[in-house]
Amino acid sequence: MSHEFRIVFEPSGRSVFALPGTVVLEAAARAGFIIQTPCGGNGTCGKCLVNVRSGKCPPTDAEIRALGVERVAEGCRLACQARLTGPATIEIPDSSLFGAQQQILTADSGGPVAVVPRVRKHYIALGPPKMGEPLSDLERLRRRLPEGATRLAALRTLPGALRRSGFAVTAVEVDGELIAVEAGDTSSQCYGVAFDIGSTTLVGTLVNLITGADLALASRVNPQTSFGDDVVSRIQLCRTEPGGLARLQGAVLEAVNKMLDEVARKADVSRQNIYEVVFAGNTTMQQILCGVDPSALGEIPFIPAFRNAVEMRASDLGLHTYPEACVHVFAQIGGFVGGDTVAGIIATRLDEAVEPALLVDIGTNGEIVLAAKGRMLATSVAAGPAFEGARIVNGMRAAPGAIEKVIVNGDLKMNVIGNVKPAGLCGTGLIDAAAELLRLGVLDTTGRILAPEEAPASLPDPIKRRLIRGHGGEFSVLLAGPSESATGQPLLLYQRDIRELQLACGAIRAGINILLGMLNLKPGDLGSVLLAGAFGNFIRRSNARRIGMLPAIPCSRIRFVGNAASFGAKRALLSRVEKDYADRVFLSVEHVDLSISPDFQMEFAAAMMLPEADEAGDCGAE
Amino acid sequence: MSHEFRIVFEPSGRSVFALPGTVVLEAAARAGFIIQTPCGGNGTCGKCLVNVRSGKCPPTDAEIRALGVERVAEGCRLACQARLTGPATIEIPDSSLFGAQQQILTADSGGPVAVVPRVRKHYIALGPPKMGEPLSDLERLRRRLPEGATRLAALRTLPGALRRSGFAVTAVEVDGELIAVEAGDTSSQCYGVAFDIGSTTLVGTLVNLITGADLALASRVNPQTSFGDDVVSRIQLCRTEPGGLARLQGAVLEAVNKMLDEVARKADVSRQNIYEVVFAGNTTMQQILCGVDPSALGEIPFIPAFRNAVEMRASDLGLHTYPEACVHVFAQIGGFVGGDTVAGIIATRLDEAVEPALLVDIGTNGEIVLAAKGRMLATSVAAGPAFEGARIVNGMRAAPGAIEKVIVNGDLKMNVIGNVKPAGLCGTGLIDAAAELLRLGVLDTTGRILAPEEAPASLPDPIKRRLIRGHGGEFSVLLAGPSESATGQPLLLYQRDIRELQLACGAIRAGINILLGMLNLKPGDLGSVLLAGAFGNFIRRSNARRIGMLPAIPCSRIRFVGNAASFGAKRALLSRVEKDYADRVFLSVEHVDLSISPDFQMEFAAAMMLPEADEAGDCGAE
Repeated sequence: MSHEFRIVFEPSGRSVFALPGTVVLEAAARAGFIIQTPCGGNGTCGKCLVNVRSGKCPPTDAEIRALGVERVAEGCRLACQARLTGPATIEIPDSSLFGAQQQILTADSGGPVAVVPRVRKHYIALGPPKMGEPLSDLERLRRRLPEGATRLAALRTLPGALRRSGFAVTAVEVDGELIAVEAGDTSSQCYGVAFDIGSTTLVGTLVNLITGADLALASRVNPQTSFGDDVVSRIQLCRTEPGGLARLQGAVLEAVNKMLDEVARKADVSRQNIYEVVFAGNTTMQQILCGVDPSALGEIPFIPAFRNAVEMRASDLGLHTYPEACVHVFAQIGGFVGGDTVAGIIATRLDEAVEPALLVDIGTNGEIVLAAKGRMLATSVAAGPAFEGARIVNGMRAAPGAIEKVIVNGDLKMNVIGNVKPAGLCGTGLIDAAAELLRLGVLDTTGRILAPEEAPASLPDPIKRRLIRGHGGEFSVLLAGPSESATGQPLLLYQRDIRELQLACGAIRAGINILLGMLNLKPGDLGSVLLAGAFGNFIRRSNARRIGMLPAIPCSRIRFVGNAASFGAKRALLSRVEKDYADRVFLSVEHVDLSISPDFQMEFAAAMMLPEADEAGDCGAE
Repeated sequence: MSHEFRIVFEPSGRSVFALPGTVVLEAAARAGFIIQTPCGGNGTCGKCLVNVRSGKCPPTDAEIRALGVERVAEGCRLACQARLTGPATIEIPDSSLFGAQQQILTADSGGPVAVVPRVRKHYIALGPPKMGEPLSDLERLRRRLPEGATRLAALRTLPGALRRSGFAVTAVEVDGELIAVEAGDTSSQCYGVAFDIGSTTLVGTLVNLITGADLALASRVNPQTSFGDDVVSRIQLCRTEPGGLARLQGAVLEAVNKMLDEVARKADVSRQNIYEVVFAGNTTMQQILCGVDPSALGEIPFIPAFRNAVEMRASDLGLHTYPEACVHVFAQIGGFVGGDTVAGIIATRLDEAVEPALLVDIGTNGEIVLAAKGRMLATSVAAGPAFEGARIVNGMRAAPGAIEKVIVNGDLKMNVIGNVKPAGLCGTGLIDAAAELLRLGVLDTTGRILAPEEAPASLPDPIKRRLIRGHGGEFSVLLAGPSESATGQPLLLYQRDIRELQLACGAIRAGINILLGMLNLKPGDLGSVLLAGAFGNFIRRSNARRIGMLPAIPCSRIRFVGNAASFGAKRALLSRVEKDYADRVFLSVEHVDLSISPDFQMEFAAAMMLPEADEAGDCGAE
């Protein structure tokens, strides 16, 4: 048998052994370097240029034609043509590598991401097999790919795809594993979807894995809300009802599949070309999604089934994508603090903050992470769904018809999404209303809506007339009369709505205070407060601060970072570097379990009180 | 964060980094050493003894109680109790390793195999999670296992299994991958099945993966025979009929599942405790089994889809085992020479033969491997199903009622399987009959059955009376009259049966001759001829040699090696060393494609002629 010799690739220094006659392209692929071959390896485009630094590699006519005598004499060769005849050192310029023309995506937060996804497509023109060559179809293909396993599904399509397309196919590879083979050149059709799986809201983003571009977005209410609006009620269902887990999982998967259908349709993309799906959600949502019983999250000491990221196949969940697509479920931190928080950390680079930084993801389950003094502490609080409009009598989601903003101008003036008649009040409107009523003196610091006669004398009459006594003697605030509302019914802000808001804000604020206390920090020490969550972006900072949800720091230090969970999930989809970062960073976050904190109940009770005044100054127009 | 330090394990020298307080058992598991803990890690049984060679590791009370002051002073510790406080070198005696009490299985051929299967079960008593310990269920379990991935199915059962069984579970691990978690201690229930998938016959063996013992055997006719009795007809079906591949795959899988049911029932074993299934068959059988189109095997240059071994999950094929069981399909050599030949090579250690050695696996597809002069050559010949009783007018398989032996003692005397009235003729009976008729001069060297008047005068009358003229003027040999046969019909050996036998023997002999010629060897140079295949074992060597199927060498050099494909498959199931050997050895076998050999047709024509005489001497009673 022939003797193999060593080929060293520069600048990395990685080496492989090769037989005489091996094409440089193949040897490089075995070393993990995928060289681009836009012309299909025909020696005509010149894009696969390499430099022979030492050793022999006799030039072919095609190389002399494509590169000229001089460059060939200098050692330039075409990787698709040059055949190795002995030991050699070969330099591969970055510009010859597949994916060299990387697109840079400016993500909505966390800075740009280089597009280096785990999923890569390689167009490979093998040509027909030769008589007397003992290699199988798979061996010939694998010689042009990085080392790794081969999925049965890819093997099953291989012989047919090769022979239907003149032995030129596109290989879909994930971390070296061959997951699909497609006839002809489909290398431009490569997509992934990033999902943020919230207790109340699901958001999915279809991404082009070549360019990094967002192609379509879908969002909808998590259908699990019909089984209970917070994670505790869903865990309870799993604990008490046989088949409860399966029903919850089925509900979210059905919605996810509808969203996959929707984004593929919107972007006119085949679902069979979706090769990776990334999910980020809190621990309960992620475990239910995976079909892993979250019951142990409902009993002390609140143990998640896993913390490291979970990998599976789309077919394991029955997703409407290529069945062998990779599914990546984010690593989790502990307790209820899950993958959405990890995604938020990588989206905001919280761990790299120089000054103490706080990440607050406001949702039904509120997550808070404090990064300071070389540590990261994370906790979750049951804020409840008030911010998403639930448990508020006239509450609704931030959809057309929702009062999303309330200001005072002699009267209460309201802004309605879609400029239609108001149908209800969404989270931001609720916060605005409470903050303004507090400023007006209509709300006292215990959160009580005062009677007109108790209110300050300066209160404008139009507002005074909005205070309505209910059956129990408690007052409500009329937001819109029957003729002004979309429903023909009056829209009122009730006393108990204020209580819900106090509970939600108090929980968040107590969590923040506990974490600050653990690191001996005061609110004023915070260099930044990052507000995340789809809802967080629409909050008026000064109003959130006025009602005590956020600590009293200047608005300039309070920043909106968008749906950080979604952005983080998208980053992990677009870049293996970001994914690895997420897979690791959770280990350096310490989980703080507030349910066992003796201080929490006291902090919570204190934080329920609305601040006397807001001393941190104006935030300007918001 | 705390600083990790290095722990070195002797005698291997492998090392890992560990945090202060890490239990030795955990650190060892991360280094890949699974230490036995029969007492569940309670420090009472003393079976997990290790020796601290350097570094500090303060003894616990439990260790002093279990080991005594003196041994503790010498550095003896219990891996389940001892906690690391700094860098250390720790020796793990073989006797402390899990699986130390290895069973040795004496396989039917190829020498003993140490039982070191890929599948390992580990009983792990974790105890309940502790308050304030941030680890998930999975992390706590994985710390006690070698590094690797976790299947979703194992993760799904983990939280429930832990909590149903007082946090003591059995982990099923394959090459570090966690594939199942079972409540309580199920570590003694660990099974695998090895299958030989022949064109005509399927054989399955259920094996205990702890003891290495055979527990049950099942065999049946490959139901694909109803679509055609050789591989070419099955390939043709795939090429011409839409859904042909699916029908063939469905047929063999249905039979495999029935055999799985059968062996589990016979051995009173739960199919859920079958964690690995190994398949060996020729390239066509293996590709059809996997659902990989074999069409390219039906056209020049006869390219298999894969040569390296294929790994999948039982659920990919719908096997009646634990759904996540590992399925291993043997590596293939090329053309029609597949995994059964690789299995035969590892079962016989053919590559280690000192003198030239020939492995002949006689089946519908006959495979021949010649090992000599540091090379291995392999080829396949279409022997046809004559040896399995098909295409023979009164042919049948070697089952009760089959004439399996024919001798001459004044007349033709026949031995019938089961001592019942004969119903037909199986392969060995056919060879015996032809050899004896040749010796008697009733058959000439062209294979023609002579008329009574052409036969030698010495031919005993009872035999002469058996020569019957048929409609076309050709003669047949009466084996049993209507009153002697099970069917009430006469049993005859026809002229065309002899032609089928000549074709089968000629193909095998021509293949042998071509391989010998390629290495410039003569039959007499062969140190051994190994006969494999369920059928091969029952052949009378002198008769096979007399009709020219085997070369004229002394019987002492012709050895029966049993169903080598089955044995090889079983070896790969019982030992990862054997599996790795099989995964590699195919690369050193050169495939010889007889269809493109210019010599084959001439050799084949010559080999169809029956030898004038057998010069190689007697084989004794067979």
